[in-house]
Amino acid sequence: MHRESATDFSIVGRSDLDLLCEFLRFRSVSTKPELAPQMRQCAEWLCDLLASNGFDAEIAETGGHPAVLARGPEAPGKPTVLVYGHYDVQPEDPVGEWTSPPFEPAIRNRRVFARGATDNKGQILAHVLGAIHLLKEEGSLPVNLIFLIEGEEEVGSTNLDDFIRARRGELRCDVVAISDTGMVAENYPTLTQSLRGIAAMEVVLRGPSTDLHSGIFGGAVVNPATALVGMLARLHDHHGRVAVPGFYDNAVPPDPAERAAVAKLPVTDDDYLRETGAPALGGEEGYTAAERIGLRPTAEINGLTSGYQGTGTKTVLPAVASAKLTFRLVPNQKPDRILNLVEIFLQSLLPRGVEMEVIRGHGGMPYAVNLQNPWCAAALRALETTFGREPALVREGGSIPIVQSFHELLGCDTLLLGLAAPDCRAHAPDENFPIESFEAGIRLHQNLLRELAAGA
Amino acid sequence: MHRESATDFSIVGRSDLDLLCEFLRFRSVSTKPELAPQMRQCAEWLCDLLASNGFDAEIAETGGHPAVLARGPEAPGKPTVLVYGHYDVQPEDPVGEWTSPPFEPAIRNRRVFARGATDNKGQILAHVLGAIHLLKEEGSLPVNLIFLIEGEEEVGSTNLDDFIRARRGELRCDVVAISDTGMVAENYPTLTQSLRGIAAMEVVLRGPSTDLHSGIFGGAVVNPATALVGMLARLHDHHGRVAVPGFYDNAVPPDPAERAAVAKLPVTDDDYLRETGAPALGGEEGYTAAERIGLRPTAEINGLTSGYQGTGTKTVLPAVASAKLTFRLVPNQKPDRILNLVEIFLQSLLPRGVEMEVIRGHGGMPYAVNLQNPWCAAALRALETTFGREPALVREGGSIPIVQSFHELLGCDTLLLGLAAPDCRAHAPDENFPIESFEAGIRLHQNLLRELAAGA
Repeated sequence: MHRESATDFSIVGRSDLDLLCEFLRFRSVSTKPELAPQMRQCAEWLCDLLASNGFDAEIAETGGHPAVLARGPEAPGKPTVLVYGHYDVQPEDPVGEWTSPPFEPAIRNRRVFARGATDNKGQILAHVLGAIHLLKEEGSLPVNLIFLIEGEEEVGSTNLDDFIRARRGELRCDVVAISDTGMVAENYPTLTQSLRGIAAMEVVLRGPSTDLHSGIFGGAVVNPATALVGMLARLHDHHGRVAVPGFYDNAVPPDPAERAAVAKLPVTDDDYLRETGAPALGGEEGYTAAERIGLRPTAEINGLTSGYQGTGTKTVLPAVASAKLTFRLVPNQKPDRILNLVEIFLQSLLPRGVEMEVIRGHGGMPYAVNLQNPWCAAALRALETTFGREPALVREGGSIPIVQSFHELLGCDTLLLGLAAPDCRAHAPDENFPIESFEAGIRLHQNLLRELAAGA
Repeated sequence: MHRESATDFSIVGRSDLDLLCEFLRFRSVSTKPELAPQMRQCAEWLCDLLASNGFDAEIAETGGHPAVLARGPEAPGKPTVLVYGHYDVQPEDPVGEWTSPPFEPAIRNRRVFARGATDNKGQILAHVLGAIHLLKEEGSLPVNLIFLIEGEEEVGSTNLDDFIRARRGELRCDVVAISDTGMVAENYPTLTQSLRGIAAMEVVLRGPSTDLHSGIFGGAVVNPATALVGMLARLHDHHGRVAVPGFYDNAVPPDPAERAAVAKLPVTDDDYLRETGAPALGGEEGYTAAERIGLRPTAEINGLTSGYQGTGTKTVLPAVASAKLTFRLVPNQKPDRILNLVEIFLQSLLPRGVEMEVIRGHGGMPYAVNLQNPWCAAALRALETTFGREPALVREGGSIPIVQSFHELLGCDTLLLGLAAPDCRAHAPDENFPIESFEAGIRLHQNLLRELAAGA
């Protein structure tokens, strides 16, 4: 479905902030099948915005939620830059903990509060508006620009590899740019040098065929919740290391230069303490918080479910207990191998009297950008021009598996120019995006295109 | 609020089974504050039934949900028997696992399916109807009969001790009878010789001030879910024993005679395997399932809650993780002491980086009936007459703290004449009560009153 390009490039009567709020009102939660119509409406809104402002834009069907694919006017002889982002968002739960409703954008303290404000609607829209304004002002763009904005990033980009393979010819580019990572401090220019990989799984233990009365049957059978805590307690040793045999076998240990670089970043353990609100920091012994996040793999329990969870007491012996787990990976750790190791380990811990089902989730390889290539230099110049200071080079704890796909399928590096503030609350209640970051992101996009055009 | 006794004792046009279904339709879930009106309606229905059929009945206010208190015609010179039961029921969760809706009684295979069918509406109504029919047929009752039917049994009978104290004069009796326990096999007459005590608590661990992104922050802070599983994994040792220091200090170990009596019961490990549907039995080493239930204390996790529990993956590092726990106790273990020991133990395991809140729930002392007293002999005769075979004497795993209160406050023993079938699914989806047990319960009540009158 190609949309006709409008000729006047107008964004009729709507400010950049108005447009962001419109974008944020869509409940584009990709993990909930019942919200598929909202997902499509959100994609169509984005597609219309691009198509009405000088881009050849289409709703690009995939095996799942559609992507938005748009191409700016041709810039012969200039490099081709693919800007990737996603319009899908995380679920809003626990909804009761939001100060204002997650899909009704509210502005407080010069920040926009809504699910997706930072991750990723605010950041990708800054790029889109940066390009639209530049095109409007100058009548052309300094590079061949492609937007690929998908709807399944929060569910592991399941269909995007196939999509890229199928349309590889159209997506051919020199470099990819993504703003879906964090800044070391608010409005501190940041290039993310590496990302952790991810491997997700759900573990379900089943014991009795139904919830039992814990008095009448308690003692007779193995309680699946007790079995689960016993197994999960073995995920870590007493030094905060992951205790799954083989987990660290291929993990590249941080070298002294990397540790020195992390130590130079303008973020300390005290900053993490303040940002997280935790009573104390913790984790693998022998590393700072920034090192544990950026340079070390982890195992996290994302959710626990069993038995009665309502008000008061219910004396049940639960039939089922389950946990959602993710593992963050560093270079040379492979998601499939890690999930195999974890499953073998859990199976070895499984007591008699319960049965285990492992449901594998999405995986993504760890990634490190090549600082030697000229695109990186251009990106660092654009960051410095936009924010007026030398950018930080950080190792990010999050995972963007698609970066690895771009490397493998399109053969190019990805520039990670994150705009997320440390306290943006991505994935959590009260997610927010500073208006200043949004405006900076618009300028950053324009500077980036200019630097990439000049520096190639 | 005393209700006028009707003079014709009629249960106009309604069969016993009709009345049971009416009783079961009330959503009398005591733990849910929003259902208080339904609780009261249920109490009023019961009160009306008794008041319309020869009893002096009242809605008796307590500090919480009301009780129904009713007294039959005076039987001068005869013993006074108090029949206790409860009209409140457990929550219906997980409602999706019911074959038919929990508050729309359905009859399948000669069983009534509904929340409360067995626990305790079916059993207490059998007593009420037994008395009503006897009074209607004979114009009098063989004993002074008191019904005390409360609305807070499933939330620990919080206000009943105060109520009994306040109205001790009216409640004075020679013996208490309760049908709120199990039969060793369906329609196998059973006197429960002992009950386990109970101590309940909820443990809440809090780490970061909000759910965090598990990539951006994973590794920097202690995950409360990881802390929780680590702590709860220490509740038991490798032999299935409770590992809380001091837990067994006062517990009376089962003597050879008790173990021999349990071994004689017509229930085997195979029966428990079939009834629970578990892949295998399990628990404290060195005991049969019946011994572990009847003679040994336990620690059970009744519920686990943390982080994301919806469809798919959400990469959060949860702010909170909590567990509901209950401990079943044997003679000489005291609920308060056990909760103290557990709290001290958990506190000793608490890692830095999370904070713990312990919310104490209800407690109940363990109890054993005195088999030497004449009321027991009368009860055993009534059971044998009703069911046509020698009754089993069982040690029940459940807890009825009120039994201890009757002992302390009214100075009398309690006869536990359970009518619950082993597969009644009390507290679980598809709770049910065989119509045959309901009818037998009506006859049992009548035989019991006759035997108590004769045997005193």
